Amino acid sequence: MVDTWNLKVLEPELQRPVPSDIQISRAQQPKLIEELAREIGIKHEELELYGQKKAKVSLDVLKRLKEQKDGKYIVVTAITPTPLGEGKSTTTMGLAQALCAHLHKNTFACVRQPSQGPIFGIKGGAAGGGYAQVIPMEEFNLHLTGDIHAITAANNLLAAAIDARMFHESTQSDEALFNRLVPKDKTGRRRLSAIQKRRLERLNITVPEDAETLSAEERSRFARLDIDPETITWNRVMDINDRFLRKIEVGRGPTEKGQVRETQFVISVGSELMAILGLCSGLADMHDRIARIVVANDKKGNPVTADDIGVTGSLTVLMKDTVRPNLMQTLEGTPVFVHAGPFANIAHGCSSIIADQIALKLVGENGYVVTEAGFGADIGMEKFFNIKCRYSGLKPDAVVLVATVRALKMHGGGPNVTPGAPLAHEYLSENLDLLKGGCETNLRKQIENASKYGIPVVVCVNRFASDTDAEVELVKEKAKEFGAVGVMSDHWASGGAGAIDLAKAVVDACDKPSEFKFLYPSSDGLLKKIETICREMYGGDGVELSEQAQKKLEIYTKQGFGHLPICMAKTQYSLSHDAKLKGAPSGFKLPVRDMWASVGAGFIYPLAGDIMTMPGLATRPCFFDMDIDPETGLIDGLF
Amino acid sequence: MVDTWNLKVLEPELQRPVPSDIQISRAQQPKLIEELAREIGIKHEELELYGQKKAKVSLDVLKRLKEQKDGKYIVVTAITPTPLGEGKSTTTMGLAQALCAHLHKNTFACVRQPSQGPIFGIKGGAAGGGYAQVIPMEEFNLHLTGDIHAITAANNLLAAAIDARMFHESTQSDEALFNRLVPKDKTGRRRLSAIQKRRLERLNITVPEDAETLSAEERSRFARLDIDPETITWNRVMDINDRFLRKIEVGRGPTEKGQVRETQFVISVGSELMAILGLCSGLADMHDRIARIVVANDKKGNPVTADDIGVTGSLTVLMKDTVRPNLMQTLEGTPVFVHAGPFANIAHGCSSIIADQIALKLVGENGYVVTEAGFGADIGMEKFFNIKCRYSGLKPDAVVLVATVRALKMHGGGPNVTPGAPLAHEYLSENLDLLKGGCETNLRKQIENASKYGIPVVVCVNRFASDTDAEVELVKEKAKEFGAVGVMSDHWASGGAGAIDLAKAVVDACDKPSEFKFLYPSSDGLLKKIETICREMYGGDGVELSEQAQKKLEIYTKQGFGHLPICMAKTQYSLSHDAKLKGAPSGFKLPVRDMWASVGAGFIYPLAGDIMTMPGLATRPCFFDMDIDPETGLIDGLF
Repeated sequence: MVDTWNLKVLEPELQRPVPSDIQISRAQQPKLIEELAREIGIKHEELELYGQKKAKVSLDVLKRLKEQKDGKYIVVTAITPTPLGEGKSTTTMGLAQALCAHLHKNTFACVRQPSQGPIFGIKGGAAGGGYAQVIPMEEFNLHLTGDIHAITAANNLLAAAIDARMFHESTQSDEALFNRLVPKDKTGRRRLSAIQKRRLERLNITVPEDAETLSAEERSRFARLDIDPETITWNRVMDINDRFLRKIEVGRGPTEKGQVRETQFVISVGSELMAILGLCSGLADMHDRIARIVVANDKKGNPVTADDIGVTGSLTVLMKDTVRPNLMQTLEGTPVFVHAGPFANIAHGCSSIIADQIALKLVGENGYVVTEAGFGADIGMEKFFNIKCRYSGLKPDAVVLVATVRALKMHGGGPNVTPGAPLAHEYLSENLDLLKGGCETNLRKQIENASKYGIPVVVCVNRFASDTDAEVELVKEKAKEFGAVGVMSDHWASGGAGAIDLAKAVVDACDKPSEFKFLYPSSDGLLKKIETICREMYGGDGVELSEQAQKKLEIYTKQGFGHLPICMAKTQYSLSHDAKLKGAPSGFKLPVRDMWASVGAGFIYPLAGDIMTMPGLATRPCFFDMDIDPETGLIDGLF
Repeated sequence: MVDTWNLKVLEPELQRPVPSDIQISRAQQPKLIEELAREIGIKHEELELYGQKKAKVSLDVLKRLKEQKDGKYIVVTAITPTPLGEGKSTTTMGLAQALCAHLHKNTFACVRQPSQGPIFGIKGGAAGGGYAQVIPMEEFNLHLTGDIHAITAANNLLAAAIDARMFHESTQSDEALFNRLVPKDKTGRRRLSAIQKRRLERLNITVPEDAETLSAEERSRFARLDIDPETITWNRVMDINDRFLRKIEVGRGPTEKGQVRETQFVISVGSELMAILGLCSGLADMHDRIARIVVANDKKGNPVTADDIGVTGSLTVLMKDTVRPNLMQTLEGTPVFVHAGPFANIAHGCSSIIADQIALKLVGENGYVVTEAGFGADIGMEKFFNIKCRYSGLKPDAVVLVATVRALKMHGGGPNVTPGAPLAHEYLSENLDLLKGGCETNLRKQIENASKYGIPVVVCVNRFASDTDAEVELVKEKAKEFGAVGVMSDHWASGGAGAIDLAKAVVDACDKPSEFKFLYPSSDGLLKKIETICREMYGGDGVELSEQAQKKLEIYTKQGFGHLPICMAKTQYSLSHDAKLKGAPSGFKLPVRDMWASVGAGFIYPLAGDIMTMPGLATRPCFFDMDIDPETGLIDGLF
């Protein structure tokens, strides 16, 4: 039984007007991370310090607290956002600060690690903002404890191994290839390594003591992966916005003897390994998921896996430290896990299962874990429930749906909201008509979406300075009308103190009876699952598969992956596939132009539209403003 | 005044036969790194822990111990090695263990961080071996504290910025480009950032308050870097053996509008940023060196720098933590700095100046710092003296020249030594004739080489089990004949206890008068410097420049880089440029086929032969054997 923490609360001095995020972050001296760890019941030997403000936490906590009941589990999601974002991360931090520092409930916030690439392109990190953020924000946004770097290294080792293997297969006879793959040891026997034995087993070949006894046909089947280069789905990754790597040709050197191939780089958080980190239950499960990764088909149409390439162990070795969540703190000194950061389109967009599980034990049965799901509720929340909760077995207790007056006005017919351009006057002065239009379309639909999972919904009106009281009241009323609780929250300007009402509403919601359920059973066919999501979440009339998507669907079903959940790659800017359609569009068919499989992570991802997986740098990226004081180490221009 | 450390010595239990490196490493429980730090006088606030076995050490130590006299400074180098290596790292560790744990002298070993790429290709790390190694070897060889990952990120940000800038320049008018680079602020003025002002200054344009006042011609000169794509020397890097990236074409995506370009990836330790880390004196100097990096010429032939691209600050921000050396320990609990790992061919192949400087203060005037230089004495030692010591201002006190009976027999005419193939019998039984031949050629020449710098030379016969006493005696005699001290050392099998004679000889050598001098003054022209190195170090008759090399030499001289020292990229397997020529070849001309500049790091590197900068994976890389126990975290098959 976990007691209420005796936590030292940091009290930010609220300034008006609210200073920049980095100024706020710097004005607050964080606690030593080992002090915070001690306060929340992490033992010294379960903690691995990375400097004084970050630490990794051992999964041994889960063993030690095996008998401990979990705390309440809250997911933060949002209505369909404008391109400026509506403040999910900020709300996650503000809510955690309010619950922990003000209502004195044991509380953890769990968030994703951001990609480093965009940080050097467009100003702004991902640590929340205002008086609701993770500190120190520089450390949150840069390198952290190296998890993304480890993923990059592991991802690219597999990519290098695929091309090297194809090269060696193309330049060697069956016999030479086999003899090199299984060389004679000192006793003259050809001993298979564990991973090679597993390949033989998958090929239904009896594993011999000495591989010398294999027949010529068996040797050939074993040694030749016979990869069809057209089917390779494993890309190289880099955590940099490098548009010139979106499409490249490799192998142009004379040593590669003309084996050129067109391929691409994706930003590192788009690696399937990041999704695996997010969904695995520990090192053993990570290992098994890596083994199952399908990188291509062979020329007969059978999947070729990372285990066939021979890299399962080495990739796990490279990623071994990533499995432990990273402990940091909010501006008010409450604990935060920063762990995993998969894309929200081609992956599931949630922080890790492991971090949530450890946090749920640490807070104890009277405590709260606030975790965030990427994008709007139609995508991020849907994936949180149907993918993340399906794999974790955890049952959430409440949904917080973040809404802003700005986004609701846009959905009610307001003018475009464009980053960089000034906001239209509709957004800066009271306009109840537009707001009402947005409430009755997008807010209604997203509340309905959340309600379909059988748990209480709290709508958080994330307040902006320009919102009028009448506007805030209208959203709250409408939320109530559609079956949710509506509260205003002002954490950006006031920190946890500004989110006390939200926190109380969340506590109440978690006390209500709930009956969590998935949207679809795994056993449904792939098409049926896609149709269910389209109809139930997006409000569409059905699905239109391209020829390519249809072909892929058949392949994946035939290969035995039909039981996997669906991870839709779709725009976040509309409930439909068309970013221009605001409010709650209906009468559309969802076009699926292609379909891909992340078998290791454990989902199929249909593409409803073009998805950009490698950002670029503009003419004047924010790196022009960036510098560091060599004496103090203070960074300028980053945020 | 630093006292003699009260250091807890770890005593390895010596096993016979000597177990594998990883077994030895695992059998020894390292001290907590904070305990070691305390023992050697590092203050708590100067230490940043990365787990329990690694820590970064702040440069504040240098300020605090400003008045402290330096310890003795010893460089470990070798005769011309066989492809199996002759044990410089092992000797460095063994010597440090003997000095510190057995002679009770304050002693630090300083070594390079190894590239992670080859670790997954060919078995074997770089932490020394046997009973003379850095522990834990897994942590030494994998990720460490992320320095190489940070270099990879910084290197690739610059690469992405170059291609993006060329793209934006090619698709925009002067006016549009200028307006985007210097947008109007809220007051309607076009404010220049600090890095943009520096560019104007380099262009001899007066820096205005409001860039709007610049003339059209000035705007154009400012905004157009006008890079000549043929002259780009900045490559992307990756810390993976990926042969298919040796030559690639980037920009093939439709969004890049046909701006394709052929380029390449190099392994990360080949990045100029790694050489900068090795040679800089701190964050401010790192910043200035990054600013000076030349990435290409413009179409008029002027150098284009990283500062022109706009990334100086952001690259320094990404690399800010790398500047602090990484503290680990040897198998006997003596301190080791692992810091920077530049290539020994296209870069200078030494660990960092900063680590050596901090170590020299920490050991105090009666202490010893043992540092290693890559490759044989003709290359690594030469660069250590003429590049590293030139930039650091440190004066070494002694040279340890590692020799093996095996390599000397090869130089005396023995058969080829090939990795993977069994050793010829000449190497496994006594053969004084071959050995004598090697002593009178390669050993003699390398002792001469070392002696030219005015400091005492100790020849360390790194003993192998198959060496006979007569063989060892012969090498010692010959060393004496050629003006050095010769001692046998058995640290691989016996740890520090096996290197006590070596340690005593080094202590004696450091007490001898010495007068350190460079081989050439910076003021010599580039060709003259190359000729001096060729004649004095390699025993060649002169230099033959290709047309291309001659052209580059003229460009670099014209651009004002003629004062930089030379960093020769040459095979390590011969004193000449031809790896097949063993012993001490003479009568050859050194062919220089091309020449490149690392202006930020601060050297010109002529290429005497083909240099491989991106390794590949064989048919059966060692990753097939690699695995991790999910319960214990123990790694198998890595070493």
